[in-house]
Amino acid sequence: MITICQFGAGRIGSIHAANVAAHPDARLRYVVDVNPEAAHKLAQAHGAEVTDLQRGLADPQVDGVIIASSTDTHAELILASARAGKAIFCEKPIHLTIERVDECLREVERSGVLLTVGFNRRFDPNFSALHRGLREGRVGRLEMINITSRDPAPPPIDYITTSGGLFRDMMIHDFDMARWLLGEDPVEVHAMASCLVDPQIGRAGDVDTAMVMLRTESGALCHIDNSRRAVYGYDQRIEVFGSEGMLRVANVKPTTVEWWSADALRVDTPYYSFLERYASAYKIELNHFIDVIGGRAQPAVSGEDGRKALLLADAAVQSFQSRRPVRL
Amino acid sequence: MITICQFGAGRIGSIHAANVAAHPDARLRYVVDVNPEAAHKLAQAHGAEVTDLQRGLADPQVDGVIIASSTDTHAELILASARAGKAIFCEKPIHLTIERVDECLREVERSGVLLTVGFNRRFDPNFSALHRGLREGRVGRLEMINITSRDPAPPPIDYITTSGGLFRDMMIHDFDMARWLLGEDPVEVHAMASCLVDPQIGRAGDVDTAMVMLRTESGALCHIDNSRRAVYGYDQRIEVFGSEGMLRVANVKPTTVEWWSADALRVDTPYYSFLERYASAYKIELNHFIDVIGGRAQPAVSGEDGRKALLLADAAVQSFQSRRPVRL
Amino acid sequence: MITICQFGAGRIGSIHAANVAAHPDARLRYVVDVNPEAAHKLAQAHGAEVTDLQRGLADPQVDGVIIASSTDTHAELILASARAGKAIFCEKPIHLTIERVDECLREVERSGVLLTVGFNRRFDPNFSALHRGLREGRVGRLEMINITSRDPAPPPIDYITTSGGLFRDMMIHDFDMARWLLGEDPVEVHAMASCLVDPQIGRAGDVDTAMVMLRTESGALCHIDNSRRAVYGYDQRIEVFGSEGMLRVANVKPTTVEWWSADALRVDTPYYSFLERYASAYKIELNHFIDVIGGRAQPAVSGEDGRKALLLADAAVQSFQSRRPVRL
Amino acid sequence: MITICQFGAGRIGSIHAANVAAHPDARLRYVVDVNPEAAHKLAQAHGAEVTDLQRGLADPQVDGVIIASSTDTHAELILASARAGKAIFCEKPIHLTIERVDECLREVERSGVLLTVGFNRRFDPNFSALHRGLREGRVGRLEMINITSRDPAPPPIDYITTSGGLFRDMMIHDFDMARWLLGEDPVEVHAMASCLVDPQIGRAGDVDTAMVMLRTESGALCHIDNSRRAVYGYDQRIEVFGSEGMLRVANVKPTTVEWWSADALRVDTPYYSFLERYASAYKIELNHFIDVIGGRAQPAVSGEDGRKALLLADAAVQSFQSRRPVRL
Repeated sequence: MITICQFGAGRIGSIHAANVAAHPDARLRYVVDVNPEAAHKLAQAHGAEVTDLQRGLADPQVDGVIIASSTDTHAELILASARAGKAIFCEKPIHLTIERVDECLREVERSGVLLTVGFNRRFDPNFSALHRGLREGRVGRLEMINITSRDPAPPPIDYITTSGGLFRDMMIHDFDMARWLLGEDPVEVHAMASCLVDPQIGRAGDVDTAMVMLRTESGALCHIDNSRRAVYGYDQRIEVFGSEGMLRVANVKPTTVEWWSADALRVDTPYYSFLERYASAYKIELNHFIDVIGGRAQPAVSGEDGRKALLLADAAVQSFQSRRPVRL
Repeated sequence: MITICQFGAGRIGSIHAANVAAHPDARLRYVVDVNPEAAHKLAQAHGAEVTDLQRGLADPQVDGVIIASSTDTHAELILASARAGKAIFCEKPIHLTIERVDECLREVERSGVLLTVGFNRRFDPNFSALHRGLREGRVGRLEMINITSRDPAPPPIDYITTSGGLFRDMMIHDFDMARWLLGEDPVEVHAMASCLVDPQIGRAGDVDTAMVMLRTESGALCHIDNSRRAVYGYDQRIEVFGSEGMLRVANVKPTTVEWWSADALRVDTPYYSFLERYASAYKIELNHFIDVIGGRAQPAVSGEDGRKALLLADAAVQSFQSRRPVRL
Repeated sequence: MITICQFGAGRIGSIHAANVAAHPDARLRYVVDVNPEAAHKLAQAHGAEVTDLQRGLADPQVDGVIIASSTDTHAELILASARAGKAIFCEKPIHLTIERVDECLREVERSGVLLTVGFNRRFDPNFSALHRGLREGRVGRLEMINITSRDPAPPPIDYITTSGGLFRDMMIHDFDMARWLLGEDPVEVHAMASCLVDPQIGRAGDVDTAMVMLRTESGALCHIDNSRRAVYGYDQRIEVFGSEGMLRVANVKPTTVEWWSADALRVDTPYYSFLERYASAYKIELNHFIDVIGGRAQPAVSGEDGRKALLLADAAVQSFQSRRPVRL
Repeated sequence: MITICQFGAGRIGSIHAANVAAHPDARLRYVVDVNPEAAHKLAQAHGAEVTDLQRGLADPQVDGVIIASSTDTHAELILASARAGKAIFCEKPIHLTIERVDECLREVERSGVLLTVGFNRRFDPNFSALHRGLREGRVGRLEMINITSRDPAPPPIDYITTSGGLFRDMMIHDFDMARWLLGEDPVEVHAMASCLVDPQIGRAGDVDTAMVMLRTESGALCHIDNSRRAVYGYDQRIEVFGSEGMLRVANVKPTTVEWWSADALRVDTPYYSFLERYASAYKIELNHFIDVIGGRAQPAVSGEDGRKALLLADAAVQSFQSRRPVRL
């Protein structure tokens, strides 16, 4: 039985905790959160115990930790968990500055623990089928990628101000997908962005509408577009195009119902919430982490993957601000 | 906490047991099965205990039973459970003869327990959205229904011989859907059928390919088609047509991946297994049963619904054998 | 240059005339119609001349005739044209009684002219691709066919009364499709029908909503449904199902535009008019007739095909009236 | 009757000629081509006469000219036709250098003739429905556009070398679509491009794979991607995204046939040829030109539209070569 201590009892923490609880080979032993009420509620739901950082990491029974607390606590928790010799699953991003990320990765390497970063989309059955098809050569040589990723509605303005901005908070997922699919690192990044959704976001120094072009050494091109608001729901699509064809993932919808009437044929819009859209991705991701702890798998998303996605996000910020492409 | 005793630890029993275990307000207390190994494995997986019929029903803590054992045991278990005053969830069919069904329903009525029959498709999010749209008047007055229901592959020939035949075993689901959607009982049934899939099925006295037409008093018409084998997967589609339009449920597929190549654009075929296709239906169905026990809902599928679906199946058998429509 | 005399200058006549005019190897020489104004207008549009039956058939330059006049004139025109030795394209149906059809076919045979019947759907690129796939074995052995055929709105009540009724006027197209796809003649027909769309249609002795089941000697089953009114447009779908899969033709739509909004994802409804839906079918059908005259093809739809579709329609009428299946 | 003289009897010329011939109010009077055989064949097919530039323009009966000859002849023909006072339909591009385009537009203005440029996609029923929906406010305020435009296979290398390159020859269509849909002129263009399809194209100094980002003054962003080779056919898609939703045009396919088999569900790939994909666009475009000559419409695509698309293409070339965005 693999024993888990989880940091963070919020929305995403609840999902990970439930997936641990449902796993036949794992149990949730501890929940740690600055909010005692949230911690107790989550612990109780899954037969776990509320504790604090020191005690959670001091328990030799604990095999691994899940870091699902706020972004500003990630680095500290990685460092402490690595020193305590625990396997680590950390929600993205590792941290918002590359220096601190590097510090974490050095400690992880020094202590020899395994670190998995929570780029959940890699575990989505749709995207992993696309990735598999790509690696099997279904599109031949890869030439272009188009990634569309739009949230249904902007987060609260308070969140925006501490998020690191659209490129580091939101598009970082797409940078990871781009790297994963391209199979090589981009050498050039160009970002254009606007504040069109909510002027408050602009006043907070951020953008809400963005497009990026990436180029790799081999000449493959990649487009990413993001919006903080798509009224029709959570818009998550990718297409990869190559010498022998194209693979696409379309949006995922709650039902297949069609309503044919005199004025229109209506079908469902996509899932509105990322929790529903990526429910199975979260489950598969957690199962993967248990497999990593159990020695049956190597981390599919490494600390280095987390670091490189942040480097791309930083380059995008710099490109947007300087109005020029950035070479990497 | 609602306490459940489950009869049957096979394929469908495992699903119900897992859904009980995952329910926040319910627990699986007992598992009863003629196969002790299967019973132990399922009980252990969910912290339940293996017992027998008498002890399971004698425990006053048990609020309800789930009957997921073989069809020939259903009636006996319903009678015993009703006498013991337990709420009952019984997999379809109640029994294969109408006399025995009537006996069960009388005992259920006499003892005042609540009986829910496992027509799982009513709980599928796709079909329930279609049903809701129909009741809300989205197609106006209902005029025609087309139901297509095809299994991926025939069951073992041993199963066929004890199943009651295609009409009572397989199409009974579609008869229930027809009644549920029509909102009135058919007055005429005509069945045509053939043995085209496997001659062994014919030698066992059954058919594997069938079409039925139903007519209601108000003049609405309904078509059902069944096949024991659809090589592309589990084919489950319904369309309802009326004075103001049509509602359709298309098949459900594992992913939304499209592969565009020089010779074709390929997309996923439907889920192959009913377990995957109806995973959420089974979950919602079980939650409904817990709500029934908890007094928060009346059975959505009553014993009378189970009985009337069997009457339609019997009429279809008679129609097929006599090569004439049967009036009800 | 193949020279055509056309009888009938109405809606369908205009289509055929335009297709003749556009054909590089054919010319429209004469138009004959009881309505002189319609005849003149159509003749003028395509550089043809208005004439009457006798003169049209007496011109030795005329190679073939197109019969697109009202149904009650078809038989007379076939007889006269056959006697005049002209190749004949006749809109469906040949006639509404089988005796008169037989008389026409005898004369056609006696005179040795070629007769093509206007079951336009066989020439639709969608249905012909389905037919080709079926013959190539893509679904293996054929087991079931589902044909849905619904008009957008009922014709004027005057038309209904002279049409021969839904089975002979409308479903006759589907009977032809069924025969063409089945590759064998049905041996049993059962029709159920209602008057749900417009009580006037019922008072005129007809139905507006119908379902039919067909069975062949080999055990293949076929379902047909018709409605005189589908508010969302002209609904024309077929699926053929067999031992190795299924081929389906979905509806054809004016555009591929999708509108994603907060409440729904809307796409086009099907073409509303048969003229638009089958525009290319009419063109291909006419080209085929020119090929027949030119000796480059045998009639794809023979007089016998016209006759057999009528036999099925007659059987459906008899079945509906007697409330029993009819053996053929 | 509007009388047309056409320059160019090649592939695109044949389409325009046939559309003139089929128009009830227009006739093709002359065909002019450097290849006498092609000219004769096309003239004969539509009852026209072969002539030369001088005689064609000298005939006072000629109302308008269609310029469908090779790109290097367009400017000369525009100048001559304008001086002769003829209405002009000119295939895109007007010319490959902006100086010569300006010269043409000055002469057109001076002589007061009407000039329509052949950006055929504006007339496609799909894209025009998208444009209409956008102008009606269906997506609210426009924020992002994605345009995908990929040819099935590269043209002969001889064509590449005289084409002006991918940006001026192929993407110019997409620049026109972008301008038309954005409703404002881009102020920034950034192009990335590679030679991945055929090294010969690279040796000819051109690229075959390209992505562009555009930004407008109001902050709207636009992505365009092009490839000279999409093995699955002619890939023509656009999506426009805004504050209240999205409108998309999907690819257009020859049939709606679906083939469900054990390994995959296959549907048609898009039309392979632009002639088929845009057949109705060409027809509507020509009808529009006849309306312009008849005084019933103003040119929907003006000379200025042709000029501005070329300016964007020039900027894209400069951006690609300098590896920087270009401000306009």
